[in-house]
This record gives sequence, C-alpha cells and structure tokens, in this order.
Amino acid sequence: MSVLEQLIEALKRLPGVGQKSAQRMAYHLLQHDREGARSLALALQAAAEQIGHCQRCHTFSETPLCGICADPARDARLLCVVESPADQAALERSNSYKGYYFVLLGRISPLDGVGVRQIGATELLQRAAETAVEEVILATSFTAEGEATAHVLAEALRSRGIRVTRLARGVPVGSELEYVDLGTIAHALVDRR
Amino acid sequence: MSVLEQLIEALKRLPGVGQKSAQRMAYHLLQHDREGARSLALALQAAAEQIGHCQRCHTFSETPLCGICADPARDARLLCVVESPADQAALERSNSYKGYYFVLLGRISPLDGVGVRQIGATELLQRAAETAVEEVILATSFTAEGEATAHVLAEALRSRGIRVTRLARGVPVGSELEYVDLGTIAHALVDRR
Repeated sequence: MSVLEQLIEALKRLPGVGQKSAQRMAYHLLQHDREGARSLALALQAAAEQIGHCQRCHTFSETPLCGICADPARDARLLCVVESPADQAALERSNSYKGYYFVLLGRISPLDGVGVRQIGATELLQRAAETAVEEVILATSFTAEGEATAHVLAEALRSRGIRVTRLARGVPVGSELEYVDLGTIAHALVDRR
Repeated sequence: MSVLEQLIEALKRLPGVGQKSAQRMAYHLLQHDREGARSLALALQAAAEQIGHCQRCHTFSETPLCGICADPARDARLLCVVESPADQAALERSNSYKGYYFVLLGRISPLDGVGVRQIGATELLQRAAETAVEEVILATSFTAEGEATAHVLAEALRSRGIRVTRLARGVPVGSELEYVDLGTIAHALVDRR
C-alpha cells in the first residue's frame, strides 16, 4: 500500500468518513494544506497520549481530576449521569446545570456484550452513596439503549434509597407541534405541568 | 486551549468537517479508537513528508517519477490534462485511457489570482511539444473555471500546431433524460453522433 493509500485508509477510521470523503481529505491536505496535515498529526498524537479519564467522573481529562470535579463551587447535592463526554459537553453548554457529573462511557447493549459492569455502574453506585449527594439525574439518551440503561441504574440507585430523576421528555423548544413525532407528543401530554 | 480543543480545531481543517463533526470525531477516537488516532497521526506525518510531485506529470508521487510516467507500456502519443490527482484517479479507474497525464494542480481563477503560470502551463507546453505526443486531451472540469482553463490551454497548444481534443459532453450513463439538466441535453444534441 502506498503512503497515500495508507493515509486514505487511516482517514476512513473517522466516523462518517467513507472512501470518497477520505480521498477528498487526503488530496486536499496534500495539495492545499500540508501544514494542516502536520498539525493534525501532532494534535492526534498529543490527544492519544495525554488525554485520560477523570478519576472521579470518568470524563476525558488531561489531569487526574477534571476541571468540573475539581471545582468546589459546584452543587455537590446533584449528580448527573450521562453516556458520554459529548453529552456532558452539551449539558454544560446549556448553562443550566451546576452540579457534578458521572460519565458512563457507554450504555447497556446486551447484543454487543455491554452490561451494567462495563459502563461503570459499580463506581456510580459508590459515587452516588457519598453523603453529599441528594439527587441523581439520569440524562442518558432517549433511545432504546439509553432508556434501558436509565431503567437499570434507576432500580439499583432507588434500592439504595437514593432519589433518582430523569430528564423531562417533551416538545423541543422552537418546534411546531405539527412536525413533532407522535411518541414525543404523547410524552409531552402525559408529563404536562 | 486544552489538548482536546486543539484536536477539534485541527480536525476542522479537513474539508467538509465543521465544529460538530470535529467534536464527534475527536470523541470517537478518544473513546473507541485510540489506536486509530495513532495510526492516523503516523499516516499524516508520513504523507506530509514523503509524498512529493512527479517531475514529469506533477501528480502526487513518493518517487521522482510516478508509476504511470515510469511505465513504458503506456501510449506516448496521448497526453491527458487534468486539474488534480483526484481527477486523474477517476480517469484511471475508468480503465479506458492508456496514455500519459499532465496534472495542472489547479485551474485558472482570476479572482483568486490563479493565472496560466500558476497552473504550470509553461511545463505543459514543453511536455506537449515532445515529438512522441500526437494529441493532447483536455480533461478539465466542465465548470466555468475548468472551461476557461481548457480554452486558454487549447489556444496556446493549437498555436504551436498540437492537436487538441476535449472530453465529450453529454448525458451521463444510467440517467433518465427527464432528470438531466437542460445545458447537458443541449450539448448532447449538438455533439450527437
């Protein structure tokens, strides 16, 4: 395999990048942006080597404790459980949550052999049992796997006497009712307030 | 800027990758494919360092002379002019051309300050003047800039007594006439055979 073919193969490992896009990317970098190719190489190497997981919440972090877990100003009574650092970042951008997080790094998926243990449920139960925690907010996705994960975790947490809530389901802000799917409308009706 | 943010910025330099895709790629590599991140870093570095241009046709090549230019079995009477190595690769995949190539690495675009000189027209005229060459096929894109490039090159080549042809314009194979744009139909009518 030539160096160019190797580059195209390596680019294809990026999510959402197939043969055509990978070719276009490789040609673009070689023809117009070799500096970009070099800086991407360095950034990838630095990220693969230096980014680990926060000891406490498991999110990506360059330090043993991530910026949020190390921040004493956050509300220690709230613990929000998310599937991934990307979901955590979305919640942070909403600027409406001031508690701590626990990042599962996955969701229950029996077909892929991902069970409760693989997503760090044991560590979550330990973390949620800390005296400061008064409420665990389950913010896993509203997909079949996310719902299953939330269900299993909610049972385990409630059996230990911990208060558990789930993000509200309803009509997205800015959407016209006409175009909202029926399942969402049904949930919005049931959860009306 | 954190290492993660640096990685996202670097990924955004890839064509077609915005903030959202770059985030998704970074999270994916860190969470599921660190090996992929490392191999992509190595492939990028190797490509940026080892891939240069063929002395003769200007396409990407790891060696002074590319595989096609070094192949004595090809038809030296034909010289096909393309805009980019990607276009050359498309022609090669069609398996219907056995001559040599000349890769412009660009097209005339006065607004961007790209003139005849920047796309290597001088080298093309020298190459086309070699005694073996009997016909130059202009295979630049059928866009405004590609057409302008073809027009300028055709004039220069013809004034030196070199036979110049252009790829046929017409209805794409497999398409229904109903959905073909009018300009293409008009060309297909004029060039009917």
